[in-house]
Amino acid sequence: MATQKTALVVSAHAADFVWRCGGAIALHAEKGYDVTVLCLSFGERGESAKLWKQEGMTLDRVKSARRTEAENAAKALGAADLVCLDLGDYPLEFSRDNKMKIVEVIRRVQPAFMLSHSQYDPYNTDHMNTTNAVLECRMIAQAWGHNPGEKVLGAPQLYLFEPHQTEQMGWKPDTFLDITPVWEKKRAAIECMEGQEHLWEYYTRVAINRANHFKRNSGGQSGGRDCRYAEGFQSIFPRTVDEL
Amino acid sequence: MATQKTALVVSAHAADFVWRCGGAIALHAEKGYDVTVLCLSFGERGESAKLWKQEGMTLDRVKSARRTEAENAAKALGAADLVCLDLGDYPLEFSRDNKMKIVEVIRRVQPAFMLSHSQYDPYNTDHMNTTNAVLECRMIAQAWGHNPGEKVLGAPQLYLFEPHQTEQMGWKPDTFLDITPVWEKKRAAIECMEGQEHLWEYYTRVAINRANHFKRNSGGQSGGRDCRYAEGFQSIFPRTVDEL
Amino acid sequence: MATQKTALVVSAHAADFVWRCGGAIALHAEKGYDVTVLCLSFGERGESAKLWKQEGMTLDRVKSARRTEAENAAKALGAADLVCLDLGDYPLEFSRDNKMKIVEVIRRVQPAFMLSHSQYDPYNTDHMNTTNAVLECRMIAQAWGHNPGEKVLGAPQLYLFEPHQTEQMGWKPDTFLDITPVWEKKRAAIECMEGQEHLWEYYTRVAINRANHFKRNSGGQSGGRDCRYAEGFQSIFPRTVDEL
Amino acid sequence: MATQKTALVVSAHAADFVWRCGGAIALHAEKGYDVTVLCLSFGERGESAKLWKQEGMTLDRVKSARRTEAENAAKALGAADLVCLDLGDYPLEFSRDNKMKIVEVIRRVQPAFMLSHSQYDPYNTDHMNTTNAVLECRMIAQAWGHNPGEKVLGAPQLYLFEPHQTEQMGWKPDTFLDITPVWEKKRAAIECMEGQEHLWEYYTRVAINRANHFKRNSGGQSGGRDCRYAEGFQSIFPRTVDEL
Amino acid sequence: MATQKTALVVSAHAADFVWRCGGAIALHAEKGYDVTVLCLSFGERGESAKLWKQEGMTLDRVKSARRTEAENAAKALGAADLVCLDLGDYPLEFSRDNKMKIVEVIRRVQPAFMLSHSQYDPYNTDHMNTTNAVLECRMIAQAWGHNPGEKVLGAPQLYLFEPHQTEQMGWKPDTFLDITPVWEKKRAAIECMEGQEHLWEYYTRVAINRANHFKRNSGGQSGGRDCRYAEGFQSIFPRTVDEL
Amino acid sequence: MATQKTALVVSAHAADFVWRCGGAIALHAEKGYDVTVLCLSFGERGESAKLWKQEGMTLDRVKSARRTEAENAAKALGAADLVCLDLGDYPLEFSRDNKMKIVEVIRRVQPAFMLSHSQYDPYNTDHMNTTNAVLECRMIAQAWGHNPGEKVLGAPQLYLFEPHQTEQMGWKPDTFLDITPVWEKKRAAIECMEGQEHLWEYYTRVAINRANHFKRNSGGQSGGRDCRYAEGFQSIFPRTVDEL
Repeated sequence: MATQKTALVVSAHAADFVWRCGGAIALHAEKGYDVTVLCLSFGERGESAKLWKQEGMTLDRVKSARRTEAENAAKALGAADLVCLDLGDYPLEFSRDNKMKIVEVIRRVQPAFMLSHSQYDPYNTDHMNTTNAVLECRMIAQAWGHNPGEKVLGAPQLYLFEPHQTEQMGWKPDTFLDITPVWEKKRAAIECMEGQEHLWEYYTRVAINRANHFKRNSGGQSGGRDCRYAEGFQSIFPRTVDEL
Repeated sequence: MATQKTALVVSAHAADFVWRCGGAIALHAEKGYDVTVLCLSFGERGESAKLWKQEGMTLDRVKSARRTEAENAAKALGAADLVCLDLGDYPLEFSRDNKMKIVEVIRRVQPAFMLSHSQYDPYNTDHMNTTNAVLECRMIAQAWGHNPGEKVLGAPQLYLFEPHQTEQMGWKPDTFLDITPVWEKKRAAIECMEGQEHLWEYYTRVAINRANHFKRNSGGQSGGRDCRYAEGFQSIFPRTVDEL
Repeated sequence: MATQKTALVVSAHAADFVWRCGGAIALHAEKGYDVTVLCLSFGERGESAKLWKQEGMTLDRVKSARRTEAENAAKALGAADLVCLDLGDYPLEFSRDNKMKIVEVIRRVQPAFMLSHSQYDPYNTDHMNTTNAVLECRMIAQAWGHNPGEKVLGAPQLYLFEPHQTEQMGWKPDTFLDITPVWEKKRAAIECMEGQEHLWEYYTRVAINRANHFKRNSGGQSGGRDCRYAEGFQSIFPRTVDEL
Repeated sequence: MATQKTALVVSAHAADFVWRCGGAIALHAEKGYDVTVLCLSFGERGESAKLWKQEGMTLDRVKSARRTEAENAAKALGAADLVCLDLGDYPLEFSRDNKMKIVEVIRRVQPAFMLSHSQYDPYNTDHMNTTNAVLECRMIAQAWGHNPGEKVLGAPQLYLFEPHQTEQMGWKPDTFLDITPVWEKKRAAIECMEGQEHLWEYYTRVAINRANHFKRNSGGQSGGRDCRYAEGFQSIFPRTVDEL
Repeated sequence: MATQKTALVVSAHAADFVWRCGGAIALHAEKGYDVTVLCLSFGERGESAKLWKQEGMTLDRVKSARRTEAENAAKALGAADLVCLDLGDYPLEFSRDNKMKIVEVIRRVQPAFMLSHSQYDPYNTDHMNTTNAVLECRMIAQAWGHNPGEKVLGAPQLYLFEPHQTEQMGWKPDTFLDITPVWEKKRAAIECMEGQEHLWEYYTRVAINRANHFKRNSGGQSGGRDCRYAEGFQSIFPRTVDEL
Repeated sequence: MATQKTALVVSAHAADFVWRCGGAIALHAEKGYDVTVLCLSFGERGESAKLWKQEGMTLDRVKSARRTEAENAAKALGAADLVCLDLGDYPLEFSRDNKMKIVEVIRRVQPAFMLSHSQYDPYNTDHMNTTNAVLECRMIAQAWGHNPGEKVLGAPQLYLFEPHQTEQMGWKPDTFLDITPVWEKKRAAIECMEGQEHLWEYYTRVAINRANHFKRNSGGQSGGRDCRYAEGFQSIFPRTVDEL
């Protein structure tokens, strides 16, 4: 019997997974992967300006609205599961307990690959702290002595998805993924983010321009594989292959 | 009708292709690739110390001996072609004419991927200058206005093979290739290098330790794919994929 | 009497100045700068694929067509002068004589600032070699003993304009320029590039997304200066200021 | 009515702001800025060797002496406010509570720009941890959901002032500020640091040599703006401009 | 009376000091140094897979077994002291209390030089966090106000010993140490690590190949000092010398 | 019989060796080294502004004046030999013939160590091109097949001496040399540079501040070796040692 293929996205705030790797989620879901989206927070304090500008807004109402958006987006993308840890944002706190909650999800999912933020982000330290924590939790999940008896984690790749203002983050994509077949799903998920409408067209432009990069790198001036929408990723670990 | 798959190795000196990517050559040859090895020089002045210590040695005799070694090694690896440009070494001269000779080979081979040296090497500037030239020649081979009518080059990956003293070169492998199935061929090719016997065991140890890295990255403590010999490569360009 | 303000753009190929800093040219022209555009080549061999695909095309006809496009674009942008050195492209050759031609232009223009390519570009070595040459020529133009009697150059900033696939080039913008007031001129210049129509929308999207970065960096979530089109630049040299 | 211009210096220990950006403080104070100096600690444990060598010294007496020095220096520079958080040094502890105290100051000051330490310092981890915390606190201060109703922070530049042994810290100045008009004030502030007299001449030499760099970068061999004392700064974020 | 020479190794887990600097320990012990090995944990959870695969294993039994191995290895190497802080691994927790325990050891040993892990390790964050903590503790140990009356630390070099998969860690050795005279002791210590037998030959190969690098850097093709086993180290701080 | 110890300085222009490593030259000369200074040019065009401002100056007169200064400085430092290749400056041309002249000097001197410029210098490409050429010539001098019969070069360290505006050049010193015993000689040599009097005090300040760094790194707050003047150097190659 074939093993179910799985992937895990770790998103600092509720909307990050949509802009940055919504295409990868939808594409792998269509390919039969169970993709789990783990939102560490709802971005309730730091990424919900539009809501906070409304009269009488409360933290709970913001969280609730953001959770609904995240659920709708995850559904639009075909994610198998959405886990919201509600750790609080701006700043995210990576206490030992919180890290163990992340480890627990990693162990349960046993992902073939993981996706998270860039390793540097001077605008948003929640992002870079998330990736540091993911690396630490990946290590813990690999330990035979952590909750002995549980299945230990293998060595999943960690892909860093595209940050805002890529060059300021020192992010360099080494992998372009053609998301043309699922673009409509990504766009639908994007439109679930009602509080950040100013970014809908922004990330549509990003996807179209990344498709240009896909084409360049698949064939240069002599042609290249056609592609209309793409996403870029940076790998942390080396690949192991049987053919170059 | 299926197109013949091809690859091109650009080696500054006659022996470089053996130590650094002999496994990749043999493996892809077995997979049906036509692999062309392009030696820019024989390493006649700078990498033939043992020969020069013999009484009455001449440049021609050194070149001839090194050429024979290279031919034997290429044959042992199953390379489809060995091209020796005899540009002179220590230093290699990258005149316009010489670069055009490289372009001509690239255009003729139309490689699916290329292999060459690290981008920095303070011990051996021939190595890093070769890679700079390969990038320049790749660009020229892509130009529609260069020898119009010839088939222009696509966008082949350039893999940088393993230099000696990797850390001093700033070389970081992102791809490990399992060469276990062809290890005997690589070892046979290594033993063709009679003048550098001190390196036979050195590069055998490298291959075994790289296999450890292959295993680590394919599965960590929980297992990983078995592998007894491997080679590492650094990619210059991003990959374009349909699945992460 | 006030001195005329001047700027100099050094473009490896005829079209580069349009996509990468057309806004800066038009904006400074409107501000009263004499902006000189120096095209080292026409991009006749390497960046004129569409022309070469036409029956019976010749190098002269390609050059002529590309020159016309460059002239039209320079006029649309309000550049004071367009200088075409016709050094040949793919590869550009930076012989001593050719470098002296560049020095001559720099000395004549006496730019308050200069613009050129990124310092690294594995896809297009003409680009990075141009910037290396510009730095060398800037140094020569500053030498009191080079053509004694001529006015020596001061210490103009060298801004690196935006390359294609910025992250692959290690290019990091430290300056965003609002080009909203001159966007129509830049778009008009872009449309002069008839052979590269596939890039018109691409660079329009770039300009709109860079405007988002302009806004972010001028005010964050609390507002920021409005901006609809922008260009990004990386500075080589430090600034000297009287107020932070 | 014009808004009061403001700036904020975050100094890990009581004396850092004097050596590293005393000129910037005095200059902007003269220009009408309200400059707030925030000292996270007094450097009581780690940067008060001379006091500790005295018989019967206590932590309170050291703090008191260092506080007095800092107050005198701040006054000499014309700082509008000196805030001492007394978080303890060697090591500084960046607990959530402590970070919120920093956020509170940032929100109150609403700085047009901020100044703090280099991002790497293997000699003094308090320094680099301070800058990490400043970036995190800047992010929190920008969050609409942090203490809703308070005025959120815009996007102030963070300048990194000059560390000791600059090259070991990977610090690269991109901005030189002419502090000649206020040098006497900076020197007076320096002389308030009675416990570190060995550094008085050291940082005077630094200021004179930085003036040489100011001149070089403002005009090269052909002249350059005269300058007798300067300070250097590295910017974290891009600038947004209307003219290059 | 001559002062006793001392050195301090800070090892995240019980076995690290053996693979990575066992030769340096044995060599300096033979030269009369008192070498203290500080193990922050036993690697009981994360680096004891073989033990955990045994039926009925407990954390205490794993720790006990690993402690015995570490004691045997330290004895084989001639270390003067082995200190086990038992801070727990995967992840190591660097609370203030734990850091003070490290500071206490540093102050007691007063090392002429220190050895620890690489500054980056995405596979094993315990390693990189250890080095960050060592730098912080070194700073605290230098503070005159920390436990006034104790002897403060000077400015010992911190050497980073060789990580696994060096290139992935950005580790670059600047110092090769000839450990040929003590190789048998290092091999004996290696064989104390019964749970990690798969690494015995791996690190023997590393030592032999590092000897090749020692020879290259001591004399190139013209000879070089003979050496059969070596270890490599990266220095954090500059050296101070009276002769180059 | 003991072999004569030797060292080689490669200076792009006639004055570079004085400011940047005059102390190292004088110190090693006192220690019995034969130090050869190789000036590739006189800096006649680019670093002789003061002379060119005189009426009726000619290239020959500038060269002659600069040669005299260099000879006086070399004598003041106790250099064993001054070799002036007169290759022309701004720009230096590194033709094959010119490189062979450098190789010839290297082979003749057989230096135990070499000194030259930083690897990056956007202000002065002659400097960085010199170091690239030195690395290439070092490689050629090591080749057994280059002028067979001559003594081949070993593996001398290449130290990069201090550039102007160190941080802009990415130069990071890893070695501080105490030049207090020979300071008077360095100052005397500095004063031979009549055309650059504005740099006399600048580089005196550099030497005093580098002495502060020497002290810091030799003992920190607890003392450190006294030192009044120092020079800093960056090493290209790893060291090989028998004790850390």
